[in-house]
Amino acid sequence: MPEKIPADSVGLVEPKKLHFDEPLPLDCGRTLDEYDLVYETYGELNAARTNAVLVCHALSGDHHAAGYHSMADRKPGWWENCIGPGKPIDTRRFHVVCCNNLGGCKGSTGPNTINPKTGRHYGPDFPIVTVRDWVRSQARLADRLGIERWAAVVGGSLGGMQAMQWAIDFPERLAHAVVIAAAPRLSAQNIAFNEVARQAILSDPDFHEGRYYDHGVVPRRGLMLARMLGHITYLSDDAMRAKFGRELREGKLNFNFDVEFQVESYLRYQGRAFVERFDANTYLLMTKALDYFDPAADYGGSLAEAFRRARARFLVVSFTSDWRFSPARSREIVKALLDADRDVTYAEIEAHQGHDAFLMPIPRYVAAFGAYMQRVAREVGAP
Amino acid sequence: MPEKIPADSVGLVEPKKLHFDEPLPLDCGRTLDEYDLVYETYGELNAARTNAVLVCHALSGDHHAAGYHSMADRKPGWWENCIGPGKPIDTRRFHVVCCNNLGGCKGSTGPNTINPKTGRHYGPDFPIVTVRDWVRSQARLADRLGIERWAAVVGGSLGGMQAMQWAIDFPERLAHAVVIAAAPRLSAQNIAFNEVARQAILSDPDFHEGRYYDHGVVPRRGLMLARMLGHITYLSDDAMRAKFGRELREGKLNFNFDVEFQVESYLRYQGRAFVERFDANTYLLMTKALDYFDPAADYGGSLAEAFRRARARFLVVSFTSDWRFSPARSREIVKALLDADRDVTYAEIEAHQGHDAFLMPIPRYVAAFGAYMQRVAREVGAP
Repeated sequence: MPEKIPADSVGLVEPKKLHFDEPLPLDCGRTLDEYDLVYETYGELNAARTNAVLVCHALSGDHHAAGYHSMADRKPGWWENCIGPGKPIDTRRFHVVCCNNLGGCKGSTGPNTINPKTGRHYGPDFPIVTVRDWVRSQARLADRLGIERWAAVVGGSLGGMQAMQWAIDFPERLAHAVVIAAAPRLSAQNIAFNEVARQAILSDPDFHEGRYYDHGVVPRRGLMLARMLGHITYLSDDAMRAKFGRELREGKLNFNFDVEFQVESYLRYQGRAFVERFDANTYLLMTKALDYFDPAADYGGSLAEAFRRARARFLVVSFTSDWRFSPARSREIVKALLDADRDVTYAEIEAHQGHDAFLMPIPRYVAAFGAYMQRVAREVGAP
Repeated sequence: MPEKIPADSVGLVEPKKLHFDEPLPLDCGRTLDEYDLVYETYGELNAARTNAVLVCHALSGDHHAAGYHSMADRKPGWWENCIGPGKPIDTRRFHVVCCNNLGGCKGSTGPNTINPKTGRHYGPDFPIVTVRDWVRSQARLADRLGIERWAAVVGGSLGGMQAMQWAIDFPERLAHAVVIAAAPRLSAQNIAFNEVARQAILSDPDFHEGRYYDHGVVPRRGLMLARMLGHITYLSDDAMRAKFGRELREGKLNFNFDVEFQVESYLRYQGRAFVERFDANTYLLMTKALDYFDPAADYGGSLAEAFRRARARFLVVSFTSDWRFSPARSREIVKALLDADRDVTYAEIEAHQGHDAFLMPIPRYVAAFGAYMQRVAREVGAP
């Protein structure tokens, strides 16, 4: 619990919800007839409505990007390090919007919400949604909020993919795209990790083909394994070495299968905690959205061709020790943008934290990201 | 099935078994009162008994390192690429011995064999064995075979760790140690991957605390997940890209959770096939042996100090794209050997296959390995 909310936090915030009645056609060929989107906003929208920034969340994220829901909250939103007064996305200047994506599990329509047609949880009947679908739904949210054009669409990892897709699909509706620790599409290895995570969930006897809500259980073993595996790919080998080394929890080998090394303790804790706060069907959907993301595919396999539609200017950021989406993958994005004659700034940040670095207050990252956003603010006439 | 066994194969081979009555004290503090070791040999032992080579197997390997058990075998032994007439471990010159390690599942005493004290499978009662324990048992095997001193002890991955341990624990009993694609000890990330694999098995409802033999089931979901995950770490990102890319099995997205990408199909196949041939309790034991391996720990944390006991000369080999045990880890071994003033040859092989490269017929690898072994042969007076 924060005894006192820090001065550089957006403070107490409250999620809002909007209901959408207009059917949303999806990439899979199906249509969502109606849906809710839960979102939060931080900072004031200026009179000219030019200072809005859309923050897109990653695999296990949600709409709660910054601030606290109550004084009892132990932790702030997931991007507290980058959103707030004086932070890279400076809420004294920008009006920030962040929504829980469709298929999520924190209030927006998804597998754990009730399907109005059946009166039961959607569960496995919820369609597989894509980054494109999310961007389409976010554009509708922007319409409803009266935001014609974002000063920037910003995201890390899967969030960065949404920023790219925005620039391609709605070129006139954003001035800048900030793409952090992302990739133009997943590698076979990335897909392989997702597939093992999915198999862990799908093969859990408590999964009940996705209808576990009706059985009063959750596939906790599977979701825990998926999260443990995910965590390995979020941290670099070096970060793990620095954090855990080969430290033994009890100082000696036990010669059994209980927790022995600190890293085991950490992973089991992370896995267990995740089960309490996340839905297994949503995890499956998010990994599929990652696997399917491939904006070049719509343009003859050429990412540069895809980017030729874009009008936004780009900031691309990568981290040296990120092996999930390595700097080489960000450089592919930069190269395609240059080939398409787009305006791009690229920052490769020396950091040992691995993929997780995009969430951390790393001084050079914060400085580069903040400087870019200050230029954006000046340009859009933010206060 | 080989229509005809290739001329450079050791041909048809037969496993042998030896029973050991002398109790074997183990690192865990317990004792194995009696045990069997299953092994194979290829090539003739010379009259002076100087040309014997011990091949040590890795996590999922066994005593069947080369040749075929019958004309109906679809595949030869696991190191067919490196053992045989004219191959790096040339069976025209060397007498090769390879045993299934204690705790294994291919005939040597392990969880899936009968505990003479109870008349039931050992299962979870089988002690957690270490690389040191294996080396001790292999030394007894050498005694029984009348091999006072190995021309070389050779292994890849976990096998390479056994070669190192031999050099430290029985300095007078080997002339050379060949350590391929290994590490002086596991990193936190390595342990983390092992821990996820173990949790997959331990949390499978069919595991029954390791007594699944009594229930007529096997924890196939867990073992399959463990193997799928293992496979990701055996292949490099590049190798996966080269092998599978983002190819779709049916040429289009399905928008469901069936197999879509070729890499998913491959992993599921590998996982399923492994369940048919491997025991889950053995998998658990092997991962623990990996986690525990740390020869420096007995010498105040100094690997160089450990190696000061060694009398063998060393060949250390690594592969550029191996991220499980990267060249940096092999260079740690080389540095410690140099610090200990030992004789070491180091070959860092350009290869895109990842950790699996040590099993592959990569020309520069085969050439370097073969040249070294020829020197060994000349030196020990092999024919």
